[in-house]
Amino acid sequence: MEIDILKDFSFTPVEKSKIDTFDFENVQFGAKFTDHMLVCEYKNNAWQQAEIKPYAPIQLDPSARVFHYGQAIFEGMKAYKDVNDEIWLFRPEENFNRFNKSAVRLAMPEIDETIFLDGLKALINIEKEWVRKGLGNSLYIRPFMIATESGVIASPSNEFLFCILLSPAKSYYAGKIKVQIAEYFSRAANGGIGAAKAAGNYSAQFYPTKLAQEAGFNQIIWTDSTHTKLEESGTMNVFFRINDTIYTAPTSDRILDGVTRKSLIDLAKKEGYNIEVRPVLVDEIVEAAENGTLKEIFGAGTAAVINQIEAFSYKDKMYELPNMDNEGSYALDLKDKLTKIQNKLADDSFGWTVKI
Amino acid sequence: MEIDILKDFSFTPVEKSKIDTFDFENVQFGAKFTDHMLVCEYKNNAWQQAEIKPYAPIQLDPSARVFHYGQAIFEGMKAYKDVNDEIWLFRPEENFNRFNKSAVRLAMPEIDETIFLDGLKALINIEKEWVRKGLGNSLYIRPFMIATESGVIASPSNEFLFCILLSPAKSYYAGKIKVQIAEYFSRAANGGIGAAKAAGNYSAQFYPTKLAQEAGFNQIIWTDSTHTKLEESGTMNVFFRINDTIYTAPTSDRILDGVTRKSLIDLAKKEGYNIEVRPVLVDEIVEAAENGTLKEIFGAGTAAVINQIEAFSYKDKMYELPNMDNEGSYALDLKDKLTKIQNKLADDSFGWTVKI
Repeated sequence: MEIDILKDFSFTPVEKSKIDTFDFENVQFGAKFTDHMLVCEYKNNAWQQAEIKPYAPIQLDPSARVFHYGQAIFEGMKAYKDVNDEIWLFRPEENFNRFNKSAVRLAMPEIDETIFLDGLKALINIEKEWVRKGLGNSLYIRPFMIATESGVIASPSNEFLFCILLSPAKSYYAGKIKVQIAEYFSRAANGGIGAAKAAGNYSAQFYPTKLAQEAGFNQIIWTDSTHTKLEESGTMNVFFRINDTIYTAPTSDRILDGVTRKSLIDLAKKEGYNIEVRPVLVDEIVEAAENGTLKEIFGAGTAAVINQIEAFSYKDKMYELPNMDNEGSYALDLKDKLTKIQNKLADDSFGWTVKI
Repeated sequence: MEIDILKDFSFTPVEKSKIDTFDFENVQFGAKFTDHMLVCEYKNNAWQQAEIKPYAPIQLDPSARVFHYGQAIFEGMKAYKDVNDEIWLFRPEENFNRFNKSAVRLAMPEIDETIFLDGLKALINIEKEWVRKGLGNSLYIRPFMIATESGVIASPSNEFLFCILLSPAKSYYAGKIKVQIAEYFSRAANGGIGAAKAAGNYSAQFYPTKLAQEAGFNQIIWTDSTHTKLEESGTMNVFFRINDTIYTAPTSDRILDGVTRKSLIDLAKKEGYNIEVRPVLVDEIVEAAENGTLKEIFGAGTAAVINQIEAFSYKDKMYELPNMDNEGSYALDLKDKLTKIQNKLADDSFGWTVKI
């Protein structure tokens, strides 16, 4: 798709790119950004002209709603460059649709597809040198929206800022992780905002996660309000393999409808794995760990794709999982197949990848 | 208490005050602010020098944590000017302590008492012309803290900004309100952040409240995760009077430990009212409404002090409350007594008021 930037978006280029000073070999996830960003204001009940302009600070009144009432949502996506230097997005419509679902739940205006998707394509076209080839390399994409109206009044803002930031990313092997099953803390309420990619969901996790880390764990597996069902791991969806079947919880108003999650479910089915989407009980996982039928647990999300879990703790008891890496790990196989589709190194029979 | 501003705080005065252009007769709550604000940065694991300076925009990197992960907390307080032009705070230590409890829950650094309380007093001393005398007039105080570190990494920030804003306020009679009991949506999870004055709690309420308003209600009475207990009303704590007894829920990790709430409990006891702090069930309130023993419901919070409720809806049925205004309304009596203490128009036997 060709986009006439000058027609649909106002574009102000940087005077000098900082790409020469960027160390593509040593990339810290989400820490540094490309030369430009897309911004678009919402006011007078309408989205205004979107602008692509040099990455720069945002200036807001100290009483802006986002600072006081957390009215903010975001998305996480990636772009990949193939061997022919073509750049591809992975299921961008899914992120666009979820962004607007989050917007509704947070009483924010839905964004136009032109601004979100065409704007993203225009921005990446400008920044294409920032996308590096090769399995593991990607461009992390962060669309977000914040409430900008001033006034410390606990009601929805009438003014918003939509923005897209781009950050070069590299996959890294962080090792398998240890997790703690939540027995007291929760990330989401029944009838709450857990299914939205809302800013407030994340800050709620920081303190419990800090306590878990101080106790030697990497993440928390979040449970429902009765702490009997396993729902998410850290900021990822979570999958369990008992014998030869994979289980993951259905989405709900507490669980994010993850794009990696739904892609893995479809991919697993296509590859002939047994996979069941149904509530996963703490008790059955503990029992399976005790009787040796629990083979794998893994988190799934855009940033890490799949994160293998090697041990979990429940009621102060640690349960170690077997090492399946050389014995047909489902997690490793699915991760390999999905990342190859994303990087255009394998056939994309699902039609998930979208060329820019 | 005398504060040597030049010693403890850096002070940059405005070139010209905007007080002459401020319409003290027509004040919209929380919409306009005084000439100066207090700001203090946290970095390198320490709070830096606090500054009192002209009210001005805040500039942040677009990847600042507060925009993406909602790591933000606030407080709401008021100052009052008495007939002798002395200015008084109401239980400021309570707000300071709660602010630091919120900070811990959101994985943010606790603020020093010197910066929060002495800083507030210094700021109000500078802005004393903005505090108007007379019952109903007050200065609304908004201390808040936001996560400022850049990077779209879902982990706690290492850099923060603490800030205090001041906004002249006037009490107004907004009328009695109609509320809807939450049967699906929730504002807080068990083990969540409902007890913290965290930004994310408020944005979670906006959409359900908008739906309730479209259905003709002013607010929602929030319930627990099973939707059987009555917990908060809008952004306020909530009280119920059945016959001659007042009931309000105990604080929990879902319910804010409101300063107005606890003051009303103590005041009601001193005034000889029967008051019980215990879970309040939806069923008993519906039953009391049906058999005529439900006399009053009211919300309690800093901004409105007490908000009388005239009707509530549950399972699509509307329950009207009797008009007790001329028959010994507990809500009106307690509101009158509390606001007179706050405004130094009645004896403060509790020692709640603190002179600046």
